Amino acid sequence: MGARGRELGVKVIAAASTGNAGAALAGMGAAGGQPVVIFAPETAPQAKVAQLLMFGARVLLVKGNYDQAFDLTLQASREFGWYCRNTGYNPFTVEGKKTAAFEVSEQLAVGSGQWRAPDRVFVSVGDGNIISGIWKGFKDLLALGWIEKMPKLMGVQAEGSAACANAWAAHTETITPVSAQTIADSISVDLPRDGVRAVRAVRETGGAFITVSDDDILAAMRDLARKLAVFAEPAGATSYAGLVKAAKAGMLGADETILVMNTGNGLKDVKSAMQAAGQAAVIEPTLEAVKAVLK
Amino acid sequence: MGARGRELGVKVIAAASTGNAGAALAGMGAAGGQPVVIFAPETAPQAKVAQLLMFGARVLLVKGNYDQAFDLTLQASREFGWYCRNTGYNPFTVEGKKTAAFEVSEQLAVGSGQWRAPDRVFVSVGDGNIISGIWKGFKDLLALGWIEKMPKLMGVQAEGSAACANAWAAHTETITPVSAQTIADSISVDLPRDGVRAVRAVRETGGAFITVSDDDILAAMRDLARKLAVFAEPAGATSYAGLVKAAKAGMLGADETILVMNTGNGLKDVKSAMQAAGQAAVIEPTLEAVKAVLK
Repeated sequence: MGARGRELGVKVIAAASTGNAGAALAGMGAAGGQPVVIFAPETAPQAKVAQLLMFGARVLLVKGNYDQAFDLTLQASREFGWYCRNTGYNPFTVEGKKTAAFEVSEQLAVGSGQWRAPDRVFVSVGDGNIISGIWKGFKDLLALGWIEKMPKLMGVQAEGSAACANAWAAHTETITPVSAQTIADSISVDLPRDGVRAVRAVRETGGAFITVSDDDILAAMRDLARKLAVFAEPAGATSYAGLVKAAKAGMLGADETILVMNTGNGLKDVKSAMQAAGQAAVIEPTLEAVKAVLK
Repeated sequence: MGARGRELGVKVIAAASTGNAGAALAGMGAAGGQPVVIFAPETAPQAKVAQLLMFGARVLLVKGNYDQAFDLTLQASREFGWYCRNTGYNPFTVEGKKTAAFEVSEQLAVGSGQWRAPDRVFVSVGDGNIISGIWKGFKDLLALGWIEKMPKLMGVQAEGSAACANAWAAHTETITPVSAQTIADSISVDLPRDGVRAVRAVRETGGAFITVSDDDILAAMRDLARKLAVFAEPAGATSYAGLVKAAKAGMLGADETILVMNTGNGLKDVKSAMQAAGQAAVIEPTLEAVKAVLK
């Protein structure tokens, strides 16, 4: 984004973000000496806001949700002549995100030396941009002949933020906004800006959309951490919650190579982690206190 | 630690930790199916506690400081027959930490193909175990003939937790406990358990101890994030604060290759990050509000 901004002769780069895309942009701006303005919903987790501020971004917390922050970023970018990096609006974000498909296919070459795609990929879906990027990446590789087939793309949404899943289930590409409400802030979106492409990615690859509850997501966070030592934020664990649900529903073949993408570090949302993990015992610094609590 | 515990036929592994060593142990325990008990001071940052709990560790928050948690872990391990991984007590921690010296020397081989050590290494010092491990790693490499000289080891401590620096300045290996008080929780230690070795590492390599204030540490956090896009926790940025102070004091040669170790992710201590970064502006979702705040 920094390079494209320079190419256009624009100095300031702006984006709406609940924190992850914003942190990446702010870090890039810090490293490249480019001013960055981030519009985040007021409810963004504090760790994400802290990271944005640390990287020196101008952070505007909008009294509203992600969608309002999104629209305000468009307005402000037009007004002030900023380069707008909004996800699902700026076409270059997909070009960045598609490289995940390259990495995956390259890493699956270990042993054989032959790049290949998994049979199935589970991705959390908010605005639909990541799954769209993954789709484009695998399509590029298929066109190049570097992989032999497309993986089935499985979009996983929170039940409370399921506009893409709804459209997919209704066999339409018309995305109807919802009033999003989920613990997974990174995928809490009323109107997915890349929704049409997300629905198409799932349909054309023969995948499916799956919705999971916030309780499923919290359980997935615990399972990932306690069984695999992967500490994911709620949106990151959502894809795994989808895998669990798909497996229970008998949607998966026994011999499939399945990739589950974790899109966010658990340290980014401590409040939700505490909700998933429970509280620690507080004790006096004595052996008696240890004995009492272990009983 | 898990392997060593198994070797000894001990199931439960225990450690005192403000969070970083504990998180590593808890994650390892989760991945290896071994029960882990962590004793942390009650004041440990919430993100660190959340991570421990997520990994399924039994977390006991001790009403006291790190030193009290440390002693209680020893007592409880003896009482319950746990394998105690306490830093500076368990000899194997240094064997793990020394591998950082290997990684550094290997990475400096890029281009030449020849492993080499930096001229100088800045390391934050709390209990003294990391700098002791680094020292051992470079000593091993020197004995093997893989590097040609020892780097000068520069121990950096917070002014409020400077027991090693005090001993070094007084030309003694007798470590006198302090009453530790610093924003850098990971290196806040009354009695450094590996203090003797830390003082020796600095003295024998021709390095120095440097102390920095909490304000120096907060400034280092900002500089690292805003100039280099590295978001470090306070203890992680302490080494860089030491570099700045050493440079100002004219202690460094112009052509030296210098390594500054960051020992912790900034997301682990959001409260301190907010203290370093300041607050974000909160605005109504209107262009007028954006204009007003940008004025």
